[in-house]
Amino acid sequence: MSYERPNIRRMRGYAPGEQPQSTAPIKLNTNENPYPPAAAVLEAVHGIDAETLRRYPSPTSAAFRAAAARIHAIASDNLVCTNGGDELLRLAITTFVEPGRPVGMAEPSYSLYPVLAAIHGSPVERVELRRDWSLPEDFAARMNAAGVQLTFLVNPHAPSGTLYPADEVAALAAALDGVLLVDEAYVDFVDPVRGHDTLPLIRAHDNLLVLRTLSKGYSLAGLRFGYGVGAADLIAPIAEKTRDSYSVDAIAERAAIAAVEHRAEAAETWAAVRQSRSALAAELESLGLPCAPSESNFLLAQIPEGVGGGAEAIYRALKAQDIIVRYFDQPRLRDRLRISVGTPEQNGKLLSALRSIVRG
Amino acid sequence: MSYERPNIRRMRGYAPGEQPQSTAPIKLNTNENPYPPAAAVLEAVHGIDAETLRRYPSPTSAAFRAAAARIHAIASDNLVCTNGGDELLRLAITTFVEPGRPVGMAEPSYSLYPVLAAIHGSPVERVELRRDWSLPEDFAARMNAAGVQLTFLVNPHAPSGTLYPADEVAALAAALDGVLLVDEAYVDFVDPVRGHDTLPLIRAHDNLLVLRTLSKGYSLAGLRFGYGVGAADLIAPIAEKTRDSYSVDAIAERAAIAAVEHRAEAAETWAAVRQSRSALAAELESLGLPCAPSESNFLLAQIPEGVGGGAEAIYRALKAQDIIVRYFDQPRLRDRLRISVGTPEQNGKLLSALRSIVRG
Repeated sequence: MSYERPNIRRMRGYAPGEQPQSTAPIKLNTNENPYPPAAAVLEAVHGIDAETLRRYPSPTSAAFRAAAARIHAIASDNLVCTNGGDELLRLAITTFVEPGRPVGMAEPSYSLYPVLAAIHGSPVERVELRRDWSLPEDFAARMNAAGVQLTFLVNPHAPSGTLYPADEVAALAAALDGVLLVDEAYVDFVDPVRGHDTLPLIRAHDNLLVLRTLSKGYSLAGLRFGYGVGAADLIAPIAEKTRDSYSVDAIAERAAIAAVEHRAEAAETWAAVRQSRSALAAELESLGLPCAPSESNFLLAQIPEGVGGGAEAIYRALKAQDIIVRYFDQPRLRDRLRISVGTPEQNGKLLSALRSIVRG
Repeated sequence: MSYERPNIRRMRGYAPGEQPQSTAPIKLNTNENPYPPAAAVLEAVHGIDAETLRRYPSPTSAAFRAAAARIHAIASDNLVCTNGGDELLRLAITTFVEPGRPVGMAEPSYSLYPVLAAIHGSPVERVELRRDWSLPEDFAARMNAAGVQLTFLVNPHAPSGTLYPADEVAALAAALDGVLLVDEAYVDFVDPVRGHDTLPLIRAHDNLLVLRTLSKGYSLAGLRFGYGVGAADLIAPIAEKTRDSYSVDAIAERAAIAAVEHRAEAAETWAAVRQSRSALAAELESLGLPCAPSESNFLLAQIPEGVGGGAEAIYRALKAQDIIVRYFDQPRLRDRLRISVGTPEQNGKLLSALRSIVRG
């Protein structure tokens, strides 16, 4: 007999990118930072003692919140820590969306959003992005008309890498009736010359929830540590009510504190990734595979018709050579490959493999 | 403006036991194992390398599941790993309970259950335990009559320490229309002479979900690692659909594998706790504070009327001496204190403080 709820029975789960547990392949499919975390993070993990393991952690991750609040020039109660950014996505739905009421998103976006909506028993209001991955002007109006209580915006956008400027985020927050969750999983890789910063917007917009994660920028995907930033009244129900008790463990909190306190080291990796991103985009372009302008740590390369047998065939051909990139079997993405920016050496191997495939 | 759902606005969050971050006090309030984890666990944590932090963990914690399946003589697909046992409690509600339909529990029980039901938008069907903390005979019938889709049974019971034998669990699973989640957070402390083991029951009962955690028995409350055991069809929707992606981090999985593979060391702590439990219960009894028979790592001591000004006053008097126990301000528990079994030294200090308070 099946005990699942009907909506769970009907839905399909999230399909994570392949995570080969060997370290042999060149893994450019799930947007990890190609460089290691700061040495202080590893020292924090290696300094964990038995007593820290034996006892419950701080239920509110108070020490991390204090450290991050200092860095962001906000208050501790503007911040809630979560077990990876993904936990915050779920918690936003749990806290702000009545089951049955729609969740909003731009299409395409991070494929976890509709999965979380399906678990909750909510439909998804999808608004197609324009050809250049920008938001259509009536985006907010359509969300409001559909009665959307929570809209997800991944910024920089995935899988294109497009950055929506802070002004546009502010206008969207102002226009939406419900909560706007800006998923800044990749924000660390935005070029600092753009001066992009949405955190000050939480003062004027009580419906703006900004997601941050240490998975990408801080090279800590293995750790599961994220946090949300917003007005205190928006954060409180998540922090005090809907979040699992002790959802962030003691080791993760300790490592996360070390990570943000040594962010200058992480920032060096961001600069290196940006440099490689430009170089890789130029090389792909010269191979006849143009990429959308990316402010993230990945590129979305277009595969023109007939080249290499198409995106899926190229994905498979690369995989046969132990180079893993991401192919999405969905509208607007079937002629593209999402490629995480690797080290110059990894990018070089990718390019030489691509060169043979593309030129036959 | 408030964006919370009405049920979230109305509810109160879970109140965790106090977690002083200094190590000074004698902390007997949240049922941690008083002994450290096995040395191999700490070695596993100290052996984490940068690459493990940088990359995503196994999305399914495949290596832990294989290790635990061997130990429990079950298959890997009978097992799902979660971010602490608490995540499994939430996931069971998410997966098996339609919002609005009731969740069942014995009263009193772990105070997180009604909080999770409130978040989900479900009422709670509460059936009062008998005076000796045993289940009333019509327990299942009342759950079924109320249309309960998921019943929580903490076994050994908290906060009394009462063990419901495996036969009784089997009969309950057979009688219930919905899923039975047996929360075995404390099962490691059951005296082995009782031969208690519910895991074989999952073969005959497709609605039985058994929760295990490393927090107590394995001295790893700081780690957040739990798992659920059940029929493959019961586990599948949790493992493949409703669980957060990557909810268990790479360090926790590595440490958890070391913990279960060195469980003989943990078992020594269980024996020591059982010995201290008997001694402490006898001493409390001789102080005029009788305890329910406990198969767990805590005792529920009764404070007879007039003694020490009552349970709450004793709790406060102990706290003033840096000894923290748990007082529950709720029916049937206002004349009791729940005391985690500590080391012989900690128990001795507790007893000498109690002696002065009780004897004035």
